[in-house]
Amino acid sequence: MEVTRQNYKDSLNTVYSAIEEADFLAIDGEFSGISDGPNVSALTNGLDTPEERYTKLKKHSMDFLLFQFGLCTFTYDQTKSKYITKSFNFYVFPKPFNRTSPDLKFICQSSSIDFLASQGFDFNKVFCHGIPYLNQDEEAQLREQTEERRNQHANGVGTPSYSSPSSKGTAHVPEEHKDYINRVIEKVEALFANSEKTLDLDPCTGFQRKLIYQTLNWKFPKGLHVETVETEKKERYIQVSKVDDEERKRREQQKQEREQEELNDAVGFSRVIHAISKSAKLVVGHNMLLDVMHTIHQFYCPLPEDLQDFKEVTMCVFPRILDTKLMASTQPFKELITNTSLAELEKQLKESPFKSPQVETAEGFPGYDTAQGQLHEAGYDAYITGLCFISMANYLGSFLTPPKAYISAHSKLIEPFFNKLFLMRIIDIPYLNITGPDLQPKRDHVLYVTFPKEWKTSDLYQLFSAFGNIQVSWIDDTSAFVSLSQTDQVQIAMNTSRYAESYRIQTYAEYIQGRQQDKEKLNQTPKSWGEDCWMKPPYTSATCAGFGYARGLRKRSISPAQGEQGARDAQITDGWSQSYPDSTGSKKMKTDDKSGLAIESKTSEGWLKTADASDSAGSSPVPDEEERSPEGNDAEGTVTWQQVHGKRGQKNKKKKSKGAKSTTSLFEVPEVW
Amino acid sequence: MEVTRQNYKDSLNTVYSAIEEADFLAIDGEFSGISDGPNVSALTNGLDTPEERYTKLKKHSMDFLLFQFGLCTFTYDQTKSKYITKSFNFYVFPKPFNRTSPDLKFICQSSSIDFLASQGFDFNKVFCHGIPYLNQDEEAQLREQTEERRNQHANGVGTPSYSSPSSKGTAHVPEEHKDYINRVIEKVEALFANSEKTLDLDPCTGFQRKLIYQTLNWKFPKGLHVETVETEKKERYIQVSKVDDEERKRREQQKQEREQEELNDAVGFSRVIHAISKSAKLVVGHNMLLDVMHTIHQFYCPLPEDLQDFKEVTMCVFPRILDTKLMASTQPFKELITNTSLAELEKQLKESPFKSPQVETAEGFPGYDTAQGQLHEAGYDAYITGLCFISMANYLGSFLTPPKAYISAHSKLIEPFFNKLFLMRIIDIPYLNITGPDLQPKRDHVLYVTFPKEWKTSDLYQLFSAFGNIQVSWIDDTSAFVSLSQTDQVQIAMNTSRYAESYRIQTYAEYIQGRQQDKEKLNQTPKSWGEDCWMKPPYTSATCAGFGYARGLRKRSISPAQGEQGARDAQITDGWSQSYPDSTGSKKMKTDDKSGLAIESKTSEGWLKTADASDSAGSSPVPDEEERSPEGNDAEGTVTWQQVHGKRGQKNKKKKSKGAKSTTSLFEVPEVW
Repeated sequence: MEVTRQNYKDSLNTVYSAIEEADFLAIDGEFSGISDGPNVSALTNGLDTPEERYTKLKKHSMDFLLFQFGLCTFTYDQTKSKYITKSFNFYVFPKPFNRTSPDLKFICQSSSIDFLASQGFDFNKVFCHGIPYLNQDEEAQLREQTEERRNQHANGVGTPSYSSPSSKGTAHVPEEHKDYINRVIEKVEALFANSEKTLDLDPCTGFQRKLIYQTLNWKFPKGLHVETVETEKKERYIQVSKVDDEERKRREQQKQEREQEELNDAVGFSRVIHAISKSAKLVVGHNMLLDVMHTIHQFYCPLPEDLQDFKEVTMCVFPRILDTKLMASTQPFKELITNTSLAELEKQLKESPFKSPQVETAEGFPGYDTAQGQLHEAGYDAYITGLCFISMANYLGSFLTPPKAYISAHSKLIEPFFNKLFLMRIIDIPYLNITGPDLQPKRDHVLYVTFPKEWKTSDLYQLFSAFGNIQVSWIDDTSAFVSLSQTDQVQIAMNTSRYAESYRIQTYAEYIQGRQQDKEKLNQTPKSWGEDCWMKPPYTSATCAGFGYARGLRKRSISPAQGEQGARDAQITDGWSQSYPDSTGSKKMKTDDKSGLAIESKTSEGWLKTADASDSAGSSPVPDEEERSPEGNDAEGTVTWQQVHGKRGQKNKKKKSKGAKSTTSLFEVPEVW
Repeated sequence: MEVTRQNYKDSLNTVYSAIEEADFLAIDGEFSGISDGPNVSALTNGLDTPEERYTKLKKHSMDFLLFQFGLCTFTYDQTKSKYITKSFNFYVFPKPFNRTSPDLKFICQSSSIDFLASQGFDFNKVFCHGIPYLNQDEEAQLREQTEERRNQHANGVGTPSYSSPSSKGTAHVPEEHKDYINRVIEKVEALFANSEKTLDLDPCTGFQRKLIYQTLNWKFPKGLHVETVETEKKERYIQVSKVDDEERKRREQQKQEREQEELNDAVGFSRVIHAISKSAKLVVGHNMLLDVMHTIHQFYCPLPEDLQDFKEVTMCVFPRILDTKLMASTQPFKELITNTSLAELEKQLKESPFKSPQVETAEGFPGYDTAQGQLHEAGYDAYITGLCFISMANYLGSFLTPPKAYISAHSKLIEPFFNKLFLMRIIDIPYLNITGPDLQPKRDHVLYVTFPKEWKTSDLYQLFSAFGNIQVSWIDDTSAFVSLSQTDQVQIAMNTSRYAESYRIQTYAEYIQGRQQDKEKLNQTPKSWGEDCWMKPPYTSATCAGFGYARGLRKRSISPAQGEQGARDAQITDGWSQSYPDSTGSKKMKTDDKSGLAIESKTSEGWLKTADASDSAGSSPVPDEEERSPEGNDAEGTVTWQQVHGKRGQKNKKKKSKGAKSTTSLFEVPEVW
């Protein structure tokens, strides 16, 4: 279903109920560009640390616009034994709300625009009919402005401005406007004397309108209703009406309601994201790090400086996410799937040993034909992503005894994949761990090499030809990481380069240390323009609580029904759940599994310490014990852990990486990579 | 006529001949945004110096995309006594030419996009079918790359790279690629042995392709044609064909022609601008400073740092320009025209004392209906701009004795308006003088005031209430220029502010001095990252000569015919003309009027000294002496200068500004403002 500014308001309840009834959601975004950096290889160095990668993406990707958002909801129908899907393709555009609202600038990257154009993307729909949106700050600011204007009109005076000479007099009119204002007063007095009901003043400036409001409210506190009206030519003028007290109140009321509605319209598409967030449903995406970053950046808040803070904000906005590209790149799928791009993945998951999922488009929703393919339309990509997830999840059921053909989105079997986002092209860190510390692979075999800018990859191969196979990860024109195949060669390489003039080699450890020192030096540089830029308070749980969930939403459509709450909490393995004490905000609560007590926490540390999904899975020897569908009647067969574990061990013997340690969980993402 | 990538090549000759036959051209651009600065008022301070304004526009406007370019050519038909118009509406988009070509990023401003959307602008046409373009550097680079690749294939080796270890061996194949390359050699040897004509290798990487080229050229210098082909999936593979020497040459020839054509396609829309430039025709625009800046920036070269250099580049690209907004804001039009926006101007110029110009759309060109109005389509805006110019030019004819109804684009009467670009919202400098020094108005009555960020305009009015009328020009949140109505009040204002704590007042002179000192301080700061950023060589005439005029163009269509040259030169009052010794470049020549000698100049100074159009006009007591149409048979009536001058003097008596000095020219722009 296509949703634009034109049918957005009418579709909102359909969207809300689709989210509410769903077992899981799939999302996808289309952007106006990918990277404004010098080139993609610099953006995605194979030996980035997660912090570096986050910083690069934040710096080089967030000025693009997410202008199409795909949402596909998947609801399992027990009787039909299939998923019912509802897919939405939202066109999103930051149309300025009014003259004072932010006039957003965004970057377009020619190659991305050209690519989307070649796929038949409809830019006119985005730019002419895109749904507007506001982030949390902008929304708050707009509400404040509306409130302030309301108070101003009610009191007849502006809020006093700090050390402002004009605030001394209540309705001070500058000399050169006095004539004008006096003429207005005369006209209004004439209105009182004659039989007309309303008086339309000539269009005038905002400053003049402010003076008129102040003067009229002060001179005629009763019997008048004053309002700004816009002509067809967008010129603004003031309309003065004679009214009795009751009429005046009624009009004020109407005006407030209108303002409220305009405000909700301005919040626009963000309300859909708020609803997804508040539902706390599993959100599935394919290679979704950029989608998550853009969604938060555009509809919640500017991304935090620090990766750790980003992880916290992500958990607030998307309490449970799963990346199908990571899933497909992990055992037991890794060896069955050769190409994890969305289009190829979808194809391969139709073939044995996988099964095409049973899905049906909900009545009244236009269906997608996967044979035709409308790839790179966000709604379609979200739909396909959901299908891939179902196929892979169901495949996991084949490891159970007895095997199960259907694995729900609430199954313990998929928990190892929760809250881990695929990291593109990092050699030894497959994912960003949103709910815990990231993997820290040893990089003893890695050298940092600097050289003249004329050098090419072949020059590096030549240079290291004595050390066997190498892997080159370009950093920029004059530097690269070179990974040797054997760590014991590192010292030899270092020694041979000692007297080289045109190039220079450092160990990875030396390189990291150097960067650290540079960073510290930078922090010590005296700064004349205020320390605060460098001293931002870390994002705390308060960030989370600060997200006011769309006040205009009907409570029914976003609060998980009380009856479902229990079943859901049982699925959350990190000891944390979202609780919604009221509809205006959310609090992060720690649920003690044994006592059932909810303890409020203001620090993030406790959360993260217990948040490692794999640890948690590892300590649950009978993972299916709590396995329940939302209806609670879908208990799955018992899995013999030793048997499955053995199976995996066999398969991976030759692949077992240095970092692996023995555990008891089935598909533990960090270890089976 | 709409021109997109689809009909561009077929339309090019139509465009060229329209330009060639025209008496003058009108242009207009539509952009993806106006300002990425904090707000427009900061971008256009009423007391900017021309240097400041240029720097601000360069900094805050050049990252937007000019994506629609309107060109309307006007050719006067003597027999019909009307202009024949041909209008073109070009959609322009920097579609990347290939993988290595620049992947341009551009900014979109929501308000601008929203505005264009509301006017029915077709974004799909821009992004899906926009004509690509290259600036001069990009074109040169691409030609170089093509040349290099050609040499590489011909020689079988890459150009040796500086201090590169791999350049030692001619066809060095890295260890890990040796197996692969050997297999390719075996396959090619098998091709020689069997009856097949061609061999398609599997798709491979660019590096592997390079190795294959090198190896095959070296091992099989004869009898093979090797070429890279692209599959439908955009995968690249190498095709090897058995050919005799003649066939091999023929194929090479074909390939080179194909490459040349691809290259011309990549230069794309820039060729139209080159043709406009080379024609040296009068180019008319409305409020055209941004159009000129964008055109140069996008199709010629990044804008120079310095305003003086910008002026030089502008004269190279557009040797004669006229801004209808400036014309309409200047005597004798200033007092007759109340609103100089294009739409309003067009309306007013249909009314007395002006006359609607006689125009006719050329056969085969779709006409515009000015009654309907398709404002903000670039082609239409260019058309309207041309109409406005004609009406205003013809109105000037009414001052002649006897009056003339038609004034040609080559008339001396319009020369005072040449090469002066309207400056938006600068109080005392109406235009940027492209061919001479800018006006330097006295700003003795101006104060520079800094204050707390809570202050509003009304606070400034309050503060200066004792000094009569003031004019406030905001700079930023905490500073503004305040112009007093009387200069003698300045010292009093300064004195009263001496002990103020919350605000601070400086004279304009003090402010300028302070800025100058800041600038010098900045230049003295030690810089570790190379001085060169601060030491850019000034743009010299060489910049101009560096513009290689579209080599692919047919000479016929862009070189002014020899016979016309004389008549044209006579119109150029600044002693400079463009001469085109060959079709690959242009040189700036100084033509000595008396001797007819052409002296080549490398410095810009001489040019500017003689470039003041008004000086030149002033020293021509018989201005109509050289007045000729391109056909040379359109001598205009004699104007009695004293009489006209008296007329003007009468009209302007009360408006006469301090800066005016007596001269003998009719419509001298600087003085009648």
